[in-house]
Order: sequence, then structure tokens, then C-alpha cells
Amino acid sequence: MAKQISDSKLGILGGGQLGRMLIQETINYNLTTLVLDPDSDAPCKHIANYFECGSITDYDTVYKFGKKADVITIEIEKVNIEALEQLEKEGKLVFPQSRVIRLIQDKGVQKQFFKENDIPTAPFQLANTKEDMLHSHIPFPYMLKQRRDGYDGKGVMRINSAADLDDAFESHCLIEEIVDFEKEIAVIVSRNSNGDVKTFPMVEMEFNAEANLVEFLISPSTYPDHIQERAETIAKNIAGALNVTGLLAVEMFITRDGDILVNELAPRPHNSGHQTIEGNYVSQFGQHLRSIFNLPLGDTRSISNAVMINLLGEKGHEGVATYQGMEKILGLDGVYVHLYGKKYTKPFRKMGHVTIVDQNREAAIEKANYIKETLKVIS
Amino acid sequence: MAKQISDSKLGILGGGQLGRMLIQETINYNLTTLVLDPDSDAPCKHIANYFECGSITDYDTVYKFGKKADVITIEIEKVNIEALEQLEKEGKLVFPQSRVIRLIQDKGVQKQFFKENDIPTAPFQLANTKEDMLHSHIPFPYMLKQRRDGYDGKGVMRINSAADLDDAFESHCLIEEIVDFEKEIAVIVSRNSNGDVKTFPMVEMEFNAEANLVEFLISPSTYPDHIQERAETIAKNIAGALNVTGLLAVEMFITRDGDILVNELAPRPHNSGHQTIEGNYVSQFGQHLRSIFNLPLGDTRSISNAVMINLLGEKGHEGVATYQGMEKILGLDGVYVHLYGKKYTKPFRKMGHVTIVDQNREAAIEKANYIKETLKVIS
Repeated sequence: MAKQISDSKLGILGGGQLGRMLIQETINYNLTTLVLDPDSDAPCKHIANYFECGSITDYDTVYKFGKKADVITIEIEKVNIEALEQLEKEGKLVFPQSRVIRLIQDKGVQKQFFKENDIPTAPFQLANTKEDMLHSHIPFPYMLKQRRDGYDGKGVMRINSAADLDDAFESHCLIEEIVDFEKEIAVIVSRNSNGDVKTFPMVEMEFNAEANLVEFLISPSTYPDHIQERAETIAKNIAGALNVTGLLAVEMFITRDGDILVNELAPRPHNSGHQTIEGNYVSQFGQHLRSIFNLPLGDTRSISNAVMINLLGEKGHEGVATYQGMEKILGLDGVYVHLYGKKYTKPFRKMGHVTIVDQNREAAIEKANYIKETLKVIS
Repeated sequence: MAKQISDSKLGILGGGQLGRMLIQETINYNLTTLVLDPDSDAPCKHIANYFECGSITDYDTVYKFGKKADVITIEIEKVNIEALEQLEKEGKLVFPQSRVIRLIQDKGVQKQFFKENDIPTAPFQLANTKEDMLHSHIPFPYMLKQRRDGYDGKGVMRINSAADLDDAFESHCLIEEIVDFEKEIAVIVSRNSNGDVKTFPMVEMEFNAEANLVEFLISPSTYPDHIQERAETIAKNIAGALNVTGLLAVEMFITRDGDILVNELAPRPHNSGHQTIEGNYVSQFGQHLRSIFNLPLGDTRSISNAVMINLLGEKGHEGVATYQGMEKILGLDGVYVHLYGKKYTKPFRKMGHVTIVDQNREAAIEKANYIKETLKVIS
């Protein structure tokens, strides 16, 4: 029997911006928060009840940390799974479950899971050696992805021809057919231990090509209902097949033929859900808490059109961060700034985000463009 | 020249729920927060960057604490004014200004200020002795209020006849004509150092007669526009006459004749503005930060009808708090729980609040009634 939420100790592996925004929400429920992160200046440091500087990939550190909590969650997948398995055996609640994190940590296993569960995804094959890559049944050009530890565009490269393989990753990889997509979309789905499932409305993402990071996110999507419903059904099917407790972000492509293909999963709050803080009745962080404490799920409907911009460190600037243009952008109505408490900036580092809420979608996009030009993180 | 908000240290005198909700908002701006409170378990303790357990009425303690901050604000008026004056002399930014706090700390001076500035308020007179109370030019029955340190209904009594004066306050008091009011209302106004002024929409309050505390708050009001505009104009006039920087909550009565009379002021975030967190485009806490850092003021419009319920400690329960009915009320859409991080409950202690947001005003009120019956703070 789980304790009351207001009586519980929540352990969070990782103390970055996702943990920070989760903690902002935990404050409303009197939760005691414990955070483990290797960076002694992590964004969560000053707002957690207890902050421990240590490795989230080391068995002993994670195990000992987890023993102090009632419920353990993550804000990043690269954590020590064996320690979480042991904690589960000893009766701790770990959400998402260690087996879900293990599956998602490995993009190869993730793709096989899609295949086995009839989840639409781009054709792929696993590749352990240069030889495999050279003789793949997927023809050049293709995408080569490291099976582990890739994030924010790292661990992914396009292979146009055999010549490109000279610089290819040495680790275990996944080869994927290049998807000729029209739009990248995401659906965040949540599931509590009772098995209640809810999706947030589908959102559209625009990437910064140079940084390979989400730059703009528009919620809700204006794709036809049947496409949005299909995307939401896929997300629900994945959550059901995984039997996950907690949030699951499902990133997908809409192809030029109108097909939907699943790209990848994140079993936690995600960049594609930041706009829910102001744009939806429940935020992804509130929903994650409701899920892992087995409470009724919140109302995921949009309140308004919302556009989210990631605030990335400006190119050519490295050092203590300052924020240029803040006063100007706060002069616009419906603008919400979220800085992540990072002292140092570097090119393309995620330093914060801004959400724009406006009943008029075009007006929201226009404001977002202005903010992108106006607000700069420099050193 | 003030520093950038993201580079600043904000000192907060008082570490209760108002400070706690203010800190939740400061996190979005990377503000460094310092809190001084005499309670070593104050609600702000774990979420402030720096928490100091000490007296907010002691000159040395407040002065030394204030020296560490760039900007100093309050979440309660009962603070050491002389220390704040000295800090102002030394160039610290203190908002609200010490002279505003000094004026508002004394309900007698506050009433004289209303009179001098043609702010409508109930007839009154000052009374220092029992003799003054007996021979007041305001006839029995009247309200007797302590000039200092009253809050949440404390320091206020109704005097029906000379006999009641046996138990009257011994301190300096204010005698006030009893107002035959139809409704208690409030308008929160904010003003930055540039002199920009904005009001939040007028709200209606329902009091718990036994506890003399706000129990229900309904936003926005459904009074006719001309009444709402008058209330907002009064609030703006007071903010202008005070030349205040920061938030100012103006509590008023609407009499049965349709007149508006100002009851009292609070120069800080206030219980009558909690529903702005979810119900308005900018929250009172966000607006207070914008005001004291001289940023453009946010959009105060209502997003939706909102009803706020104070979650008071249940009668007959004293001890470690538990929250009964939480799961049930989280099953309703548009319900936002804010617990204040107080370990111990006692009858009528403010333990948290719940805001209900609904496009339909009647539905919001109905949910509020259900929540009032369902969610209980017990020991």
C-alpha cells in the first residue's frame, strides 16, 4: 500500500531541468524530494529537500540513494538499472519500472519491441560491426544510430555512402531507413497503476537543423482529427503494451503519404510537453505525479493555443550566462519564461524555455518568432 | 541600477505559504532566494536557496539578513521597519517601501491615510483608553480593532454595549462604525517603479463566520461593470497615493446601498489572489516579481471562472496533519491543490488551498462545495 502523496519521499534520479520542473509541482503536494545528480550545481540543487551529488549510473550510489525514498522516478534514462531492480525486489516503487527503462535505454530493443507489437516504425536492422553497416539490407543513404546513450541529436548520423562509414560509430548500432517526413509530432501519454490511461493532445515540433534540437513546439496540432486520433491511439497502445506506470513521450513522424511512424520513446516528462504547464489543464509534471502515486489522471485538454521555444545558448558564447532581451519579451501578453538555473551557457545548451499562450494560433507563432529573435542567452 | 532579475538575490521576510508560492514563481527566473523566519520548520525552508531561522521583528537580525540580498520584500507586515529604513539608506531596494509597510502596520494611520486621500471608508475614530471607547462619537454597536498586529480576524471584536468593554483590548485601538455590507470584495493592484499600474479583476469573498477567515473566493465577480470599475479605480488611487512598488491587496465592502468602502490593505501577495495562479494569465506572485524588479506588468485578465477554497485545519484535530479525501477531489477536472508544507495542523490553521477552474461558474461553485465537504485536514 502506497503512502499518501503528502507523506511520501520521492527520489529523482537526475537533477536537471525536468527534475526542476517536477519539483516545482511536488511543492503543491508537500512531497519530500530527494535528488541524485553528478553535477554539484545541478538545476535541482537548491529546491530539493535533499540533494546528493553522485553518479546515477553507479550501482551502489543509486541503491543507497533509492533506499531513502518511498517512490523512485527518473528524469533521464541513463541510470543504473540493476540497482533499480534490486530496489523493486525490496518493495520500493520504481516508476517507470526498471524493465521499461531497460527496454527504452537500448534503441535496438525499442525497435524490436515496436516490431513485435505492431507499432508502425521505419524499417531497421541492428548492426554491430562496420561489416554489418556495409552489407545492410537497408540501402544507402540511411540513418545510423547508437543503440545506447544518444540524446538531443547526439549518437545519430546520416550515412550517404560506404565512404561515410570511416567515421561511423564503433559501438552497437541501429540502421534505419530514412523517413521522408512532413512533420515531427509527439503525443505524451500517461498511465497510473490502476491502468487508467490519458493522452495529451498531439503537438507539432520544428527542429533547429544545426543543433538537431526541438526549437519550436506548437500545441495543439492542426492536423485532421483522424490523424491526431491515430497518433493518440498509437501512444496508448505503446503504453498498454509496455504496461508502464508514469509518463511516456512518444515521438513520431508524419510521412508525406500521411502515415505515422514511431521514432522513439522517453518514459518521463519530456521537452515536447513543456507547454502543458500553462497550455493545458494539467501539466505533464502534474500528470506524472498523479500517475506514479496512482491518483486519478488530470484533464489533458488544451486551454489555449500554446507555442514553446527552447532557449538555447547562443553560438559563440561560453561562460556565465546572462539573458538579453528579457524585459522586452515580458512586455508581451501571455509569455511565460522558465529558466533552468544553469550558471554556465555554451552553444545550444538548453538554458530554459518560453511558452506563449494565445487564443489566436497565428498570433502565438508571431510572438514566438519575435521572442526567438529577441531573447538571447549570452556570456 | 537594479541587476538583472536572473542575477539577483531576493530576500523575503517571512517564510510562510505566501513566501512559498512566491518562491515557486522565482524558480522560473533563476532568482536566488533568501528567507528569514522564526519557525525552523517554516513552509519555505526547503525550497529557498538560503533559509535563516530568526526574528523578523528584531533590528539586528533583519538588518544583517537584508545586507545579503539585492532586493528585499515581505510576506507579512509585522517586520522591523527601522532595519528596512537603514537598508534603504544604504541603497538596498526594499519593496514594498518601508514607509508603506509602516503606514499599513498601523490600522489607525491607515484609516487616516484613507481620510486624507478621499478614499471611501467606514467612519472611525482612534481610541487609546477605555474612557475613549466609552465616550466614542460612534455609537454602540461598533467594531473595535487593535491598531497593530491583527490578522486573520485576530485583534477585532464587536462591542455591543458598554458592558462588552470589560473585555476590550488594552492596546491602542480604532473604533469603526459597523458596515451593513452585502459582500466583501477585493482588488489586487500592482505597481512597478516606472509607475505602471494594473489591477486584477475584482473578486468576491465568503467568510467562515466561526473562524473569521476567507473560506471561499469567487473570481471574477459578477457585480455590474460600473461597480467593478469603481472598485478597481479605488485600488489604483490607493496605489498611486501610496506610491507603492509591488502588490497591494485592497479589501473592500459593498454596502446594501451599493457603496464601496475600503476595509484594509495588505502590501504583498494576499489570500484573495491565490486563484490567479491558475485562473489568470499572470499570477499575483508573478506580478509581484515583475513589480519589484521593475519589469513590464503581466496580463491580469481571467482565463476562466475560478473558485478558491482555503483548506483549514479541521476542528477537534491537532497534531501531525493528514489529508483525507485527496484522491476523490483529484478525480474532478480543473482542480488544483496547493498544500503549504506545514507538518502540524490545528483548528482553522491555513494548511493549503484548492482552486477550481471551470468555464461554467455554477459548476465551479458546485465543485467547490463538494471539495469543502470532502477534503479534510485531520491529525
